Amino acid sequence: MVAEGDDLAALILSAAQAGGDGPSLVGGDVVAVTGKIVSKAEGRLVDLSSVEPSPRAHRLAAVTDKDARVVELVLRESAAVIRARPGVLLVTHTLGFTSAMAGIDASNVGRDDHVLLLPENPQRSAERLQEALSTATGVPIGVVITDSHGRPFRVGNTGVALGVAGLDALVELEGEPDLFGRALSTASKFPLADLVASAAVLLGGEGSQGTPVVIVRGLGVDGGRRGSVADLVRPVGTDMFAVPDRDYG
Amino acid sequence: MVAEGDDLAALILSAAQAGGDGPSLVGGDVVAVTGKIVSKAEGRLVDLSSVEPSPRAHRLAAVTDKDARVVELVLRESAAVIRARPGVLLVTHTLGFTSAMAGIDASNVGRDDHVLLLPENPQRSAERLQEALSTATGVPIGVVITDSHGRPFRVGNTGVALGVAGLDALVELEGEPDLFGRALSTASKFPLADLVASAAVLLGGEGSQGTPVVIVRGLGVDGGRRGSVADLVRPVGTDMFAVPDRDYG
Repeated sequence: MVAEGDDLAALILSAAQAGGDGPSLVGGDVVAVTGKIVSKAEGRLVDLSSVEPSPRAHRLAAVTDKDARVVELVLRESAAVIRARPGVLLVTHTLGFTSAMAGIDASNVGRDDHVLLLPENPQRSAERLQEALSTATGVPIGVVITDSHGRPFRVGNTGVALGVAGLDALVELEGEPDLFGRALSTASKFPLADLVASAAVLLGGEGSQGTPVVIVRGLGVDGGRRGSVADLVRPVGTDMFAVPDRDYG
Repeated sequence: MVAEGDDLAALILSAAQAGGDGPSLVGGDVVAVTGKIVSKAEGRLVDLSSVEPSPRAHRLAAVTDKDARVVELVLRESAAVIRARPGVLLVTHTLGFTSAMAGIDASNVGRDDHVLLLPENPQRSAERLQEALSTATGVPIGVVITDSHGRPFRVGNTGVALGVAGLDALVELEGEPDLFGRALSTASKFPLADLVASAAVLLGGEGSQGTPVVIVRGLGVDGGRRGSVADLVRPVGTDMFAVPDRDYG
């Protein structure tokens, strides 16, 4: 169990050492870490009894059948409300991406009437953790801080990157040749860090079986920094779907 | 290179045998196969010179800057047009899911002026392949037929299942305990087959480096059939986003 102030790099290195018969981390490994334990280490736990909902939070809580105090926290973390329906509050986070409840969650928190916010700046958290792991091991390591998001069109949560360091977040394939030399189209973008996050969801699971750190070996990342998680998020105003369908006040 | 009429199960078994030093497939393996090679084996190649676009196809081709003959094929495969913009034609496929261009694609096809449709019934294709692989090996094998789709909110294509057999498409986690015994919420659905498809995209890549078959070992699937790919698709009329924003005629 991770608590506020814990040194995640040290915890990860010691857990990796304990688990394996080979070296704990090798050059080119990507360490996928849930945003949840990053938030816990950063002390992002909020006591709901300390939250005073605004009138807007009360209105949206009534529409969505959600706790007005949690809705208040969601609104504080959000730039726009995209959809509010019974059971659904989808927002564009101040960090740029669109997701349900601004990533605020009560699962695996372990304290009644408390919720956990996302890390304050998960891109920076990823960069710090990457630096700590690379320095401690002396080899290039990549880091992806992960979450799982629901999605339009399909059922179920898949992995997304909240922060990424030491590997490309997005790989542009436009113009690369196919098997027959024909150039790939503009649609060919490979969201490497999100795919790593989905692999971590597949292997890490959820609930009581959840494993908060997954080592992805064999991708051969070089530890360089090119771009950031912002490469994976469609900029506000350019997405056909991240648009409010009405005025949410 | 896969051609019409090829026996995919035989090709997969012989390629797996050639590659490894252990047994080619072991019980519990999931074989992720791109829809592209399933389509090729099923002869879903269409010569565009044989396609006569309708007036509606011409109109939508003008809006989207796309080949009217390809748009005609997209419309024949679709139940509804969700968005048409320059460079974008997003439809709900007659198979139920929503994606760009009804999955019709010219990459890795290898013949000018030809495109490949999706398998006619990829769920049935998955079931047949699963039966053939399980019978040939004598152990339970899972099969996921995969594609990659773009997505609202985020950049890049992730993996989706077009057909699934021998493993759960979707795992419902609602009510399962978290680390502290608190029940997980209704949002906790684990889209196992889509996550396998994303792992296959991560490992298989795209373009000239593309690997059309990926073996996912260690998930321990039991080969049973529970549900289908339909479990992963939000039913028409229930999705907040798979809704046309105007009349596309």
